Amino acid sequence: MDQTLPAPLQHEHMLFPEGLHLECGVHLAPVQVAYRTYGTLSAARDNAIIVCHALTGDQYLAERHPLTGKPGWWSRMVGPGLPIDTDRFFVICMNVLGGCMGSTGPRSPRGGEGPGLEPRRVEPWGTEFPPITIRDMVRAQKLVIDRLGIARLFAVIGGSMGGMQVLEWAATFPDMVFAAMPIATSPFHSAQNIAFNEVSRQAIFADPEWHGGRYWEREAIPARGLAVARMMAHITYLSEEALTRKFGRRTRRDPYGPANPLSLFGEMFEVESYLRHQGSSFVRRFDANSYLTITRAMDYFDLGADHDGDLSRPFHGTRTRFCIVSFSSDWLFPTTQARSLARALNRAAANVSFVEIESDKGHDAFLLDEPDFDRTVRGFLSGAAEHARIG
Amino acid sequence: MDQTLPAPLQHEHMLFPEGLHLECGVHLAPVQVAYRTYGTLSAARDNAIIVCHALTGDQYLAERHPLTGKPGWWSRMVGPGLPIDTDRFFVICMNVLGGCMGSTGPRSPRGGEGPGLEPRRVEPWGTEFPPITIRDMVRAQKLVIDRLGIARLFAVIGGSMGGMQVLEWAATFPDMVFAAMPIATSPFHSAQNIAFNEVSRQAIFADPEWHGGRYWEREAIPARGLAVARMMAHITYLSEEALTRKFGRRTRRDPYGPANPLSLFGEMFEVESYLRHQGSSFVRRFDANSYLTITRAMDYFDLGADHDGDLSRPFHGTRTRFCIVSFSSDWLFPTTQARSLARALNRAAANVSFVEIESDKGHDAFLLDEPDFDRTVRGFLSGAAEHARIG
Repeated sequence: MDQTLPAPLQHEHMLFPEGLHLECGVHLAPVQVAYRTYGTLSAARDNAIIVCHALTGDQYLAERHPLTGKPGWWSRMVGPGLPIDTDRFFVICMNVLGGCMGSTGPRSPRGGEGPGLEPRRVEPWGTEFPPITIRDMVRAQKLVIDRLGIARLFAVIGGSMGGMQVLEWAATFPDMVFAAMPIATSPFHSAQNIAFNEVSRQAIFADPEWHGGRYWEREAIPARGLAVARMMAHITYLSEEALTRKFGRRTRRDPYGPANPLSLFGEMFEVESYLRHQGSSFVRRFDANSYLTITRAMDYFDLGADHDGDLSRPFHGTRTRFCIVSFSSDWLFPTTQARSLARALNRAAANVSFVEIESDKGHDAFLLDEPDFDRTVRGFLSGAAEHARIG
Repeated sequence: MDQTLPAPLQHEHMLFPEGLHLECGVHLAPVQVAYRTYGTLSAARDNAIIVCHALTGDQYLAERHPLTGKPGWWSRMVGPGLPIDTDRFFVICMNVLGGCMGSTGPRSPRGGEGPGLEPRRVEPWGTEFPPITIRDMVRAQKLVIDRLGIARLFAVIGGSMGGMQVLEWAATFPDMVFAAMPIATSPFHSAQNIAFNEVSRQAIFADPEWHGGRYWEREAIPARGLAVARMMAHITYLSEEALTRKFGRRTRRDPYGPANPLSLFGEMFEVESYLRHQGSSFVRRFDANSYLTITRAMDYFDLGADHDGDLSRPFHGTRTRFCIVSFSSDWLFPTTQARSLARALNRAAANVSFVEIESDKGHDAFLLDEPDFDRTVRGFLSGAAEHARIG
């Protein structure tokens, strides 16, 4: 169907007309990767760090976000003099394949995005976007790194789904990764996490504005389903302690509640109001089909699966230096999973350190102010830079 | 609006035309309470045990369920020779106020259920059903107990929301409760649990068949929203270990997935299939407005709130014998919350024992086969019966 889409935001990007052969067997072409960089690539091209974003993150790592106007999601970590020091390192952050901030994904026009096409007059992929994997995401990132003429990355760093990409980078392109820092992540997605993602997807499918995934034809957004998905996910990102500390059982008047003063329902708990806000602000910046595509990629992530379940085998012979970080109150990616990764790397005789940060902030701790974590990142990068003999 | 409702199941019940003055200030009349009993009330009327059901349970405790055809939800615990021994005790289980299995609730006709009315020709309460509390539920149960001529209950037992009712029974009618066994429960609903309930409610509101809560006018059911709510709740009832043991990352063909053999999405994880089944079977037996009413009652439960947060005060001077049970892998009602209850009862100089059962089955452990738990129930009741001098 011929369809006029809203004018997209212009994101800095690279276009790869030859595309990418995906793990599912589909050849996706062209492929576009949107990215942002911070700092300066050294003459020796040896100071590049990829930061990989999580499920709902994007490439606007350390600057004002063009849609929300908020500071970048890791502004406290990446910048001049900060733990990931842009006076010293060249930092690249790329929107994942399947995303909705400028990289090829379900919202991309199916006919391609090349200069010879009219991208605003063709049908988007929608639900027919091919299924992608974490490895596909990493291989799309490698196209960018190759074009930048970077033969070896100084480091790859990321939390949550970003950490899955870090592991995939180190497993798939071991000679290109000098140092790897997988944070608050796991070498496989657990049954519980798959279950939560499945509820998210069902919430989106249940929305009347979903229209079988062709919501863009109706100029609609499955906003309520997406908000429910986000609200639920948000609970899993926080610890019970963090929720109790932030909100406890405090109540406030519900502006949409019944006027009857006798009604207990006239007030709501603050945690409800917070979640509703989280849900409604999310739908303004995220595409439902991208959410489905990316959660599926997470669910299929299982680094040992191609190696008879032996998690050490993808890392045999690796010379990459690893620093694995977990947070004590993270129940979505608990320390037990990080520890199984550390053990596998030890079995592979890799150079690996493992740090569990004491925190009551839950999974989101990697995005929040945790001085011990900042010191860990700074220390690992400084030590690795010394070994790599970077400026 | 004059409205024909489907013929309701006939549940054994008592009708109280005088009704009940609810905590919200509304006088609800008449009130009907549906119940089932097992065993025989002794001549001295001293062997009665109330078993309180959880959020989505009902009075069909130890017999085939009239809607689902499945065994009662605690058939393994209640019966002749079982831990709650119906050869010895008279067991009563009542559908909670606000429920949908015969007690007065949102599906009840607003005009009343008395013999002078035509219950199938009047409008149901729906969303205008007054908000109820756990204490209201208990006071409705007391109407039944009074009519049965029982002055003192030998015991009140229940898990999860059932445990909240146990605590409310002991706090509100201390002289009527000889022994109390709150299981897998908490003296207040936590911020995390309120948050999960709020997501459930938003999932129901997001369903196109919700129709502002007047779905019965359209002969509709907000089935997808209710299923999403149930799926999410179901994850919280299990532990991560239990999900991993039951399903791990095993996959199967998705009967509704794309036919494309290249597609990763052609298969689904077994845990997804299981959750979808849980969701779809639930909507056939539960009313959405009841779900909203009862989750709200749980959220408002905070036993210390009327006592400046001092949880011991509702129990000062109590002579009830308490046995508190928690399960080590229950993260919805964790042992820490049970322990705070035990400490409060100790401060109130109550007779209290506290048992944490080692189990990897999560919150649902109280419904499942846990021999240590069975022994605890049997032992506590036997000891208490000796003290109460029951046959």
